[in-house]
Amino acid sequence: MTSLNDLQTKINDEVNKLSFPLRPANLYEPIKYILSIGGKRMRPALLLMACDAFNGDINKAIKPALAIEVFHNFTLMHDDIMDNAPLRRGKATVHEKWNQNVGILSGDVMLVESYKLMMQVGDKLLRPVLNIFNETAVGVCEGQQTDMEFETRNDVHIEEYINMIRQKTAVLLGGALKIGGLIGGANDHNATLLQTFGEQLGIAFQLQDDILDVYGNPEKFGKQVGGDILSNKKTYLLIKALELANGEQSAELKNWFSGSHSNPKQKVEAVTSIYDQLNIRHHAREAMNSYADHAFQALESVNMPAQSKTYLRGFADSLMIRES
Amino acid sequence: MTSLNDLQTKINDEVNKLSFPLRPANLYEPIKYILSIGGKRMRPALLLMACDAFNGDINKAIKPALAIEVFHNFTLMHDDIMDNAPLRRGKATVHEKWNQNVGILSGDVMLVESYKLMMQVGDKLLRPVLNIFNETAVGVCEGQQTDMEFETRNDVHIEEYINMIRQKTAVLLGGALKIGGLIGGANDHNATLLQTFGEQLGIAFQLQDDILDVYGNPEKFGKQVGGDILSNKKTYLLIKALELANGEQSAELKNWFSGSHSNPKQKVEAVTSIYDQLNIRHHAREAMNSYADHAFQALESVNMPAQSKTYLRGFADSLMIRES
Repeated sequence: MTSLNDLQTKINDEVNKLSFPLRPANLYEPIKYILSIGGKRMRPALLLMACDAFNGDINKAIKPALAIEVFHNFTLMHDDIMDNAPLRRGKATVHEKWNQNVGILSGDVMLVESYKLMMQVGDKLLRPVLNIFNETAVGVCEGQQTDMEFETRNDVHIEEYINMIRQKTAVLLGGALKIGGLIGGANDHNATLLQTFGEQLGIAFQLQDDILDVYGNPEKFGKQVGGDILSNKKTYLLIKALELANGEQSAELKNWFSGSHSNPKQKVEAVTSIYDQLNIRHHAREAMNSYADHAFQALESVNMPAQSKTYLRGFADSLMIRES
Repeated sequence: MTSLNDLQTKINDEVNKLSFPLRPANLYEPIKYILSIGGKRMRPALLLMACDAFNGDINKAIKPALAIEVFHNFTLMHDDIMDNAPLRRGKATVHEKWNQNVGILSGDVMLVESYKLMMQVGDKLLRPVLNIFNETAVGVCEGQQTDMEFETRNDVHIEEYINMIRQKTAVLLGGALKIGGLIGGANDHNATLLQTFGEQLGIAFQLQDDILDVYGNPEKFGKQVGGDILSNKKTYLLIKALELANGEQSAELKNWFSGSHSNPKQKVEAVTSIYDQLNIRHHAREAMNSYADHAFQALESVNMPAQSKTYLRGFADSLMIRES
């Protein structure tokens, strides 16, 4: 197996080589800009890894891997407009650096460019690969819309939340793995198992993110503790807490999550205290571990070289901080 | 040849039959809404016509025709946000009726849906058809961006203007005809000639639109005379007038087109008077007729049944008010 580090280097080289027309400058420069401000290239790396895992030629998978990265950055460009976000990875977002119309239209053409890249597969794979890509893209849009609708709802159920994060985050990981597997020579059955591995892992990963926001070591995690609480975000922790809370706890939570409060530290401490009373960290970890287990079961069932399985398992473990 | 009226009826039936998931409602209802407020369905009709012209089975072309219509309406949904337009065909625009984020995201998923529809062709045509669709989509985005950039430029040349309207309007007509031709059994050479016919006709049609805005019969044209002048829009007429104007006329034009003026009627009359002095109507008609002639030359060269050629010629003539 090619190491993750080598894959990331290869992807970054190829991203830098992507060429677009010079004009209209305000259509294409934002694409180069958002792609240049980085990220870990995890999604295209997963696509290449899946190809490699079946002993496929990763050079044949590089354009589809770029397609996944361009698509992902298209969603970031439009999400940043919708979220009114001034910064992305510490740099000005496209709609801030240029303007909103530039962000909309550059994003649109990025989506088309991602199709152009994804089409660079053999004729036999063209239709199946694009079908997966279409379903993935629709899922991501549905997930984003559902997430926005959650902001104004107070009756979100755990299952709805899981489905939202599955669509918004996990289907793209699953889609990348399935496409990479098919290019690497996997049959549909094995590629679909790899997709399941990716989706379930993606859900587990997002749940871990929810936990770390409250219980993570801020030095390691690199984010402010309680950021989700302060922004009144509906996370697994909050939804589960509202489900388990008694009348008094429920009223207290609803009070903290309505409007803004002048003392952020106090708010984070009070909410965390209720989470602790309800053993929310434990419940969230159980859910996370359950999705991770599903992921590993799917991976175990894939018919691929043992070495590949071990590698992917190791990769997944490194993503997850497994807590017992 | 199936009549335009029958094609439009068929397209409307199929548009009404398009089904989308019920949820998230705010993702899919705007799609049904914008498709339901109509339009003449000219682009999908052209695609079916091209298929029919080569004696192809138009039932095999109906999904790609819908793809063109869904794509076109996606561009309208996003353009309306960018133009801050409150109304579309007399109805509230999507971002007005819902909100801007809904307009962005519904548009995104419409673009994906248009790919799903466009993929409903035989395996042999899948790649060529999608290549045309990609190029068309990129062209439309480039045209829209260039159009927005023209708003703040005062040095737009005629060739740049023609290229902008070619991209923004004409390539989609050309692309629809080429795809329809291929599905109908045309070889690449003949399908490309039909595409040229569509593109050149599209440019002529847009130039006619520019002329009618100033010189059209408002009762027949259905728009306010001088709307482009009042909104300071750069049209063929204005750009040509600035090219031909003497110092005094140029200063006068620039004065009228800078900022807003309190008397709209006076502004339209003054600008029209300068256009008349410079014989702009004649120049614009010459340009329009020249593009229409190119269109008809391309059509003449297509190897297709004489009857089809006659029909397409008649259809094009009905679009163009040919003035000598």
